[in-house]
Amino acid sequence: MSFAEILEAAQKSNTSRLCIGLDPVLEKLPESIRSKPDPLLHFCRNIVEATSDIAGVYKPNIAFFEAYGSDGIRQLEELRKAIPPHIPVLLDAKRGDIGHSSAMYAQFAFKRLNAHAVTVSPYLGRDSLEPFLEYPERCIFVLCVTSNPGARDLQLGNRHPLYKRVIDMCTTLRQLGEVGLVTGATHLEQLQEIRELYTIGPLLVPGLGVQGGDTAQAVKAATKNGQLPAIFNVSRSVLYAGSGSDFANTARAKALEYRDAINRALE
Amino acid sequence: MSFAEILEAAQKSNTSRLCIGLDPVLEKLPESIRSKPDPLLHFCRNIVEATSDIAGVYKPNIAFFEAYGSDGIRQLEELRKAIPPHIPVLLDAKRGDIGHSSAMYAQFAFKRLNAHAVTVSPYLGRDSLEPFLEYPERCIFVLCVTSNPGARDLQLGNRHPLYKRVIDMCTTLRQLGEVGLVTGATHLEQLQEIRELYTIGPLLVPGLGVQGGDTAQAVKAATKNGQLPAIFNVSRSVLYAGSGSDFANTARAKALEYRDAINRALE
Repeated sequence: MSFAEILEAAQKSNTSRLCIGLDPVLEKLPESIRSKPDPLLHFCRNIVEATSDIAGVYKPNIAFFEAYGSDGIRQLEELRKAIPPHIPVLLDAKRGDIGHSSAMYAQFAFKRLNAHAVTVSPYLGRDSLEPFLEYPERCIFVLCVTSNPGARDLQLGNRHPLYKRVIDMCTTLRQLGEVGLVTGATHLEQLQEIRELYTIGPLLVPGLGVQGGDTAQAVKAATKNGQLPAIFNVSRSVLYAGSGSDFANTARAKALEYRDAINRALE
Repeated sequence: MSFAEILEAAQKSNTSRLCIGLDPVLEKLPESIRSKPDPLLHFCRNIVEATSDIAGVYKPNIAFFEAYGSDGIRQLEELRKAIPPHIPVLLDAKRGDIGHSSAMYAQFAFKRLNAHAVTVSPYLGRDSLEPFLEYPERCIFVLCVTSNPGARDLQLGNRHPLYKRVIDMCTTLRQLGEVGLVTGATHLEQLQEIRELYTIGPLLVPGLGVQGGDTAQAVKAATKNGQLPAIFNVSRSVLYAGSGSDFANTARAKALEYRDAINRALE
């Protein structure tokens, strides 16, 4: 199955365009988890078990595992195996290097971790992204307009802003495989424009929740009122909704709120 | 000691501005190494032992370890301990994410791996780089003009090209800590211009060797004829100079050639 197909199947079976970001911060985990072996794995696995009937995508951010070195990466590898096969796994890695180095990053994401998709950074240009597209039926999500304040520093501004050059590059890259874009909900004007300019791939929309993007507006813009594929990421607002021993249920309740808000925007 | 000081000390003690890139590709390793446990570690440690009196910097590229998952990262962690303390370790990672995720990458590079410096990607802007500068006496090398063909896709072109916006951003970031730039030897004109515009930090110059940059011209441009700090990276040309059981000696001989060619350009 292509990434588009597995994404659509998961969105239908769970009635969900919600992407749950798995960003475990040791200091924020419930006391009961922090003292256990493999706390990152343990925490995230609990979140997955509590939400696997309402998530459209899981997006582990490798930064939060890499922080703990080989021990953290091992926990990520274990976590990946715990994600049910009907839900796509999008590795948030923002990788990008010259070709033969990017090939090694692709090897990790797709061969070793068996992710369905990976986020990549476009700074090094086309040949830095091509190695990821050598894996059939996998998808890359290229950073376009990110959800943080620093998006203004390089991506926006100028007559022909950088993010439009990224769209142009991805339009030609699309001939090689499945290519989506990352566009933050916090920059709604650009999100609308990007969806007009780029209709041949899915959008990953971060920036809801803690970062403050408006859910209904972002959903309408990113999907063109439900016509085009897009997924909406929430990480911290779901993961740390509760801090007690019932944290997984609290996270589930918060995830349901987001999933339903996304669906309402599409009615 | 600041990064600038440890860099200068290593360059003096080894009379070397040569940066040796540690990019181990399993399939390219000598037969005798490939069959051993921990082949990446074993190979790189042999290279380090054979060159630690002539290297100015070691630059392990994490992509080549990450390709093998937690097992690869463990070998990188072991390798780092095998690098003599008088030679700076520059982790080539090209990381960059929104602030609280970048903080996790910085934690790995500086706290866990104890690298002296790390390469980072500027696409997400200022707040994606600031967390790396919270570690005193460490240095970031920000991608500016990279050595690959794809540098033309986004970095170059336009009246006010992207790489000049990166230089502007790094000039203000420099107030927070040590900031260098990555500028490929394969784009000599930009290398000269960047050194004129940015004199307040070191340059990391990849693209010699396999990638074809001219050593003498790159050295003169990047150092302003020896006045400013710059390091010149060679990876594959050194690592895979030989494939027999004497590979480490062959690599040493090739590294000496590069070191001496760099020094001749400065006479």
